[in-house]
Amino acid sequence: MIREFGQAAKVLEWVKKEDLCCAEGALRVRMLASPINPADTNWIEGTYGTRPALPEVPGTEGVAEVMESRAAGFAVGDRVIFLDYAHGWQESRVVAAADVLRVPSDGNVLDLAMLKVNPATAWLMLERARSMDKPVVLQNAANSGVGRCVIQIARARGWRTVNFVRNAELAAELLDLGADAVFSDDEAGLQAAKLWLQQENAEIFLALNAVGGESAVRQLNLLADGATQVTYGAMGRRPVTVPNQFLIFRDMRFEGFWLSRWLKEASRDEMTAMYEELVTMMQKGQLRQAVDSVHALADFAAAFARQTAADRRGKVLFRGE
Amino acid sequence: MIREFGQAAKVLEWVKKEDLCCAEGALRVRMLASPINPADTNWIEGTYGTRPALPEVPGTEGVAEVMESRAAGFAVGDRVIFLDYAHGWQESRVVAAADVLRVPSDGNVLDLAMLKVNPATAWLMLERARSMDKPVVLQNAANSGVGRCVIQIARARGWRTVNFVRNAELAAELLDLGADAVFSDDEAGLQAAKLWLQQENAEIFLALNAVGGESAVRQLNLLADGATQVTYGAMGRRPVTVPNQFLIFRDMRFEGFWLSRWLKEASRDEMTAMYEELVTMMQKGQLRQAVDSVHALADFAAAFARQTAADRRGKVLFRGE
Repeated sequence: MIREFGQAAKVLEWVKKEDLCCAEGALRVRMLASPINPADTNWIEGTYGTRPALPEVPGTEGVAEVMESRAAGFAVGDRVIFLDYAHGWQESRVVAAADVLRVPSDGNVLDLAMLKVNPATAWLMLERARSMDKPVVLQNAANSGVGRCVIQIARARGWRTVNFVRNAELAAELLDLGADAVFSDDEAGLQAAKLWLQQENAEIFLALNAVGGESAVRQLNLLADGATQVTYGAMGRRPVTVPNQFLIFRDMRFEGFWLSRWLKEASRDEMTAMYEELVTMMQKGQLRQAVDSVHALADFAAAFARQTAADRRGKVLFRGE
Repeated sequence: MIREFGQAAKVLEWVKKEDLCCAEGALRVRMLASPINPADTNWIEGTYGTRPALPEVPGTEGVAEVMESRAAGFAVGDRVIFLDYAHGWQESRVVAAADVLRVPSDGNVLDLAMLKVNPATAWLMLERARSMDKPVVLQNAANSGVGRCVIQIARARGWRTVNFVRNAELAAELLDLGADAVFSDDEAGLQAAKLWLQQENAEIFLALNAVGGESAVRQLNLLADGATQVTYGAMGRRPVTVPNQFLIFRDMRFEGFWLSRWLKEASRDEMTAMYEELVTMMQKGQLRQAVDSVHALADFAAAFARQTAADRRGKVLFRGE
């Protein structure tokens, strides 16, 4: 848990606690796995969109097994993911049945632990392309967790993706995953992408931006009139600067996406429908997320060492005992 | 007319020409009045969103009288405004009946000459507020032609406006016109507006931006989560810079508006319905635009001297002989 906001390596503590006895409508669950997301780091630093009252247990998402059920429709041994904040970095917790969703008991535990955030963010942003004819989706930070989900979900639907990455050496890996084109996120990459679009005779009406700054502005030069740019991250920590002609004469729209807001506002039916589709894709092998390493909860220092390592390749996860 | 792009005072010429004989479906009309709009200056400079083939006659909008009709439904003496580009700065022209709209023959000629652009721009941007509960609309450049129409149309509907102006001495005039609050477009004005919103317990979901730069960013600090900012001008000639948290965590949307695009895409029924409502408002005295001066076409040098004069108060118009 954390008692104050700050760098994870400094403020995380491993604490013994006992779960309250399970009340009517609630479940006592054992955490099976919970990843470290970039949002967790911000949440611990106190720089996320919301701040919890402290002390509190971090962990945005995770998968758990039901140990005791006081709610209809949930049996011991069922697996659940958390629709609300998971507080996933602990061995066990009590949760209202209304705040969880049952998932298959035979799925890959690590995949299910990473189901809530990245696949859903990708899926929901891609919804804007449903009404488009033969969508081509543009994104930066294409090697991120969300970026890789975007590539795979688009591919499963027969849509194309044009992907920008900071490290162009990743191109082969993303093409393997189903990317249609991968370019370096700089001026040379922009020019190469323009050529590709000409050759393919393709128009882009949806751009996903997780970087901001110049990377976000570069996207505008590849978009068709009337296109939408959705900002869901700010890895570059710089604002989106929109030259006026893109707004006025080229009718582009700029929106943001924050999964937490959607999860708060969506109906349970909407959430169930989306996550069931995503679980089906996982079961078919169409949606995979890279795993860097798996750690015991008590080894959080080692986990954060991997999380900040330059050679990290995929998610770092905690696994229950 | 102009033969090359450049400063209006340098490239405008007064030329004699004869109208082609009027073909089936067309009208020969005599221009009654046509204003100088900021868009005309850009059009002449070649810096507008579209560039005509030269030589060409400027004049975005205007009102004319039918001299000869070869089209059903139009009689000599009818008055029309131009849905397409008016080429209004000439004595007479031939126009397809499909490209004009009949207006009342007893209205104020100067008001009708300024009907197409500013009132329509204000009306269409305000459409986004129709679904809102007790709308409060925020705008900068509130003293502009569009800004004054926004104030009056909102007032006629019982909606409130919060207005920012560069010159705070204009406050009394805009309050007279129906503005609910007027502030100087700087940091002090922003703080005063925050207080006003608190006192009124009001939330703003629609902001209209004709300036860009810091003025556009200041608006964001007054908007409710989920609000939309519509950019329709760039008087400050600086881009809109959107800090990422407004996009991601506060769910704000950024769009542009360009009347030319709407006029190209809208159906004749939509256009007719809007302009009829606006003419009715004019007839009731609910929608007026300030006039600085009226000039003969041949006196374009004097007209442009007024257009660029520091003490200009309202539109400069050309009037037919």
